[in-house]
Amino acid sequence: MTDSKTTPMNGAESLVTTLLANGVNVCFTNPGTSEMHFVAALDHIPGMRSILALQEGVATGAADGYYRMTGKPASTLLHLGPGLANGLSNLHNAKKAGSGVVNIIGEHASTHIELDAPLTSDIEGIARPVSHWVHTSKSVATVGADAARAVQSAMTAPGQIASLILPSDTAWNEGGVAHGAIDLPAPAPFDESQLEAAVSALDGPETLLLLGGTALTEANLEIAGRIAAKTGCALLSEWSNARLERGAGRVFIGRVPYPIDIALKVLEPFKQIVLIGARAPIGFFAYPNKPAILTREGAEITTLAAAGADLGGALTALCAAAGATDTDPAHVVTAAQPERPTGRINLDNLAALIARAIPEDGIIVDESVTSGRAFSPATKGAPRHTWLNNCGGSIGYGMPAAIGAAVACPDRKVMCMTGDGSAMYTVQSLWTMAREKLDITVLIFANRSYQILRGELTNVGVQNAGPRAMDMLSLERPTLDWVQMSHSMGVPAVRVSECEELEAALQDGLESGGPNLIEIVL
Amino acid sequence: MTDSKTTPMNGAESLVTTLLANGVNVCFTNPGTSEMHFVAALDHIPGMRSILALQEGVATGAADGYYRMTGKPASTLLHLGPGLANGLSNLHNAKKAGSGVVNIIGEHASTHIELDAPLTSDIEGIARPVSHWVHTSKSVATVGADAARAVQSAMTAPGQIASLILPSDTAWNEGGVAHGAIDLPAPAPFDESQLEAAVSALDGPETLLLLGGTALTEANLEIAGRIAAKTGCALLSEWSNARLERGAGRVFIGRVPYPIDIALKVLEPFKQIVLIGARAPIGFFAYPNKPAILTREGAEITTLAAAGADLGGALTALCAAAGATDTDPAHVVTAAQPERPTGRINLDNLAALIARAIPEDGIIVDESVTSGRAFSPATKGAPRHTWLNNCGGSIGYGMPAAIGAAVACPDRKVMCMTGDGSAMYTVQSLWTMAREKLDITVLIFANRSYQILRGELTNVGVQNAGPRAMDMLSLERPTLDWVQMSHSMGVPAVRVSECEELEAALQDGLESGGPNLIEIVL
Repeated sequence: MTDSKTTPMNGAESLVTTLLANGVNVCFTNPGTSEMHFVAALDHIPGMRSILALQEGVATGAADGYYRMTGKPASTLLHLGPGLANGLSNLHNAKKAGSGVVNIIGEHASTHIELDAPLTSDIEGIARPVSHWVHTSKSVATVGADAARAVQSAMTAPGQIASLILPSDTAWNEGGVAHGAIDLPAPAPFDESQLEAAVSALDGPETLLLLGGTALTEANLEIAGRIAAKTGCALLSEWSNARLERGAGRVFIGRVPYPIDIALKVLEPFKQIVLIGARAPIGFFAYPNKPAILTREGAEITTLAAAGADLGGALTALCAAAGATDTDPAHVVTAAQPERPTGRINLDNLAALIARAIPEDGIIVDESVTSGRAFSPATKGAPRHTWLNNCGGSIGYGMPAAIGAAVACPDRKVMCMTGDGSAMYTVQSLWTMAREKLDITVLIFANRSYQILRGELTNVGVQNAGPRAMDMLSLERPTLDWVQMSHSMGVPAVRVSECEELEAALQDGLESGGPNLIEIVL
Repeated sequence: MTDSKTTPMNGAESLVTTLLANGVNVCFTNPGTSEMHFVAALDHIPGMRSILALQEGVATGAADGYYRMTGKPASTLLHLGPGLANGLSNLHNAKKAGSGVVNIIGEHASTHIELDAPLTSDIEGIARPVSHWVHTSKSVATVGADAARAVQSAMTAPGQIASLILPSDTAWNEGGVAHGAIDLPAPAPFDESQLEAAVSALDGPETLLLLGGTALTEANLEIAGRIAAKTGCALLSEWSNARLERGAGRVFIGRVPYPIDIALKVLEPFKQIVLIGARAPIGFFAYPNKPAILTREGAEITTLAAAGADLGGALTALCAAAGATDTDPAHVVTAAQPERPTGRINLDNLAALIARAIPEDGIIVDESVTSGRAFSPATKGAPRHTWLNNCGGSIGYGMPAAIGAAVACPDRKVMCMTGDGSAMYTVQSLWTMAREKLDITVLIFANRSYQILRGELTNVGVQNAGPRAMDMLSLERPTLDWVQMSHSMGVPAVRVSECEELEAALQDGLESGGPNLIEIVL
């Protein structure tokens, strides 16, 4: 960084130089007037891949997917409070996933803020609910150091949302000072005081080892498999996992189900639960007259390592303490393919078709909502692949996260499975996929309704919902035409309703190496 | 409301009953699980028109347009923090426009919040930056009264954003108490102490009477026209007006221009400025080495009535004090139509074509950004019409606001003029237009770039922007196909590049009585 300290630079240049020095070399953006100096700096300082999104929800969701696949943050460049606001719900999802993101938000020049111009807003106030770290730079001289601190915050395990607000005069003024690589915090140690309790809890099929976060890497799952083989404990992951390694040759782990009655039944047997990177299971929503805590009454819960702690260390120590270090892991998956289905597509044969299509080392971004509940068992024996869930529950995460994953892993194929209702939320994603020629196959599960809510109406106790209620959960009148939608943004697309059609479309799409969309009429 | 007080009801029913009793009978919504009881109540209590949006930015922008055309709030029904977050930027625009909106935001059941479920967030924190009033109901018994207070806040002049957060147990529990019509606050009186100063300031062409808000109704503009005729003062409105009445037979008022150098020149002559419902002109953005205050140095500024005060009263009193009550108004517009242009469409003949197409009593929603700067003079002599600007500067306001205007005024035709970049932000609007069969003609000005930012790059002092910078301002690679986009959501569409084509498309579209889209290739 000697160069950067001696060459005169403006604040925007100090920002870009600092981000690059700290390994942040992708920027998902939709800039405006207050960010024009950053655009100029991104133009003439080489090294940052800038990716334009036509709505900021695409940019922030992409940053989420990017972090999950690289373990390092992308930057976003957002236009004032409203630009940040548009990206807020996918920052919520990223926060819940433990993804690190460095948001750069332009602000009016310091002298302009008090004038209350049309675009003036409380940017810090908008950022705070979704951010771990919020800071407004006070002068051009600190922009570089502030950016380095933002990266440091974003890299705090398991990954945090850092929002740096830069008044435009701090960007355009001369006097920028680039900061070199900042020290990154190590993850917190796991809770050794709980190790003995955890080992004694792990005793037979009435015990559950519940894993989350980076406990779900291939290596850590293998350790968990050894523990399960030795102690007879069950293994589960949370319902939503930021990243889960799956497929043939790896240790299989199921998920705590979403539907509350099924979740209660699955968790009922467990008298002891050991948590590593996971939280004790609770309901996604509250329902009248149903419990919110899903574990059996009196279950003994031991937290060996919370999210952000050294999860691999916790698993290794637990494995050693259980005497399982040399035990062969249980639940190792044998390669298996469901039979080739034919005829009209339904939810069962859909799972089989997807399982048969998953490519080696594929990345599956899953926002399949109701359509995808049968996918887990069907895809168990597919080739090795990575599975990403929506961790914050705000729909519209899927296509943006697929963009981030594809940018992160240009040599891997991405399958993005999304409900039609979810996909509409950030439909602008298709354009960015086309522009960046990303290797993404988008599967739209077109059940033409917010299907999940039909079940939820009953779950919350609403009987005999009338036509006006059902209308509010329907995506018909008019029917969305996903093929035209996709074409309109430059992504090739087909519509299928028969198994043979989907099989062919998946093969063509995955082989194409570029973005493509398949509308699956359900 | 006797009935509602004696019939047992749950909290959701008390909400809907209260909103209806307070004149709120439109709900723009995208509900989720935590709002299912409201969906049920909307189903079985008649009177509320519920309109589904496929992304919440459409819902909140529609509420903005609806208020501008009715002077009363619509409700929105939003799913938890993320649903609110998606609607935030158009709430920002509504706030800056002085539009009243009643947001109903579902929250987890009170007992569920502390469990930090995936969708848990700081809803009050998300709401606060765009709201004048934020409240979380503490019990089912207060939901009705809380809803009435929300309407009261939304109806506080000029119109406010009220955000009511309802934990789902306050919705599903029995014990709801509906509230009847609540007292609505009168606008503040204008500042009589400034009347004398204002009258003496209004003296010839070096004085400007600058108007905003409801000072721009037909009746108030007529009063302003009398004052101008008597005193020789100039009339201007702000750059962005929530609602401006224009056209033949009305008093014409120009707008303070957006481009800073032109604005400075237009305002330079005025040594005295009287403000009624407007603020002293400032730059939309700050630019290096340019002033932020656009009025000449030493200009004497008199605020007779701020936004939210009795603007009609201020104008009437000023008119009387100036002895202009019986003066014929100046600047009354004579009906005039530009000549019929032919050939390839460009920005000049586009203005003429639009001027010729404006229907009697049409509503023009203007998010035309760079393409529309010539529209004001060209459309001056068109038939009487209403013009709505984006007041908050966050793009994506146009199509949603058009929805709200069309719902508010089913007997009037709406023309929505929007840049392609802006339209992409809330492109989901097209589906709601189709579903509700709204009489909206959408004009997409397809210059295939964030054209405004190309100018802004230069304005902020960036010279010789390179290809990577220009790429971030371009909507090409791929080119958006608005005809397919529109068809995909059920709205008929055509693409035009010749004047004759646009003329025919405008005639067909406006006569169709339903939603339609014209992509104008520029």
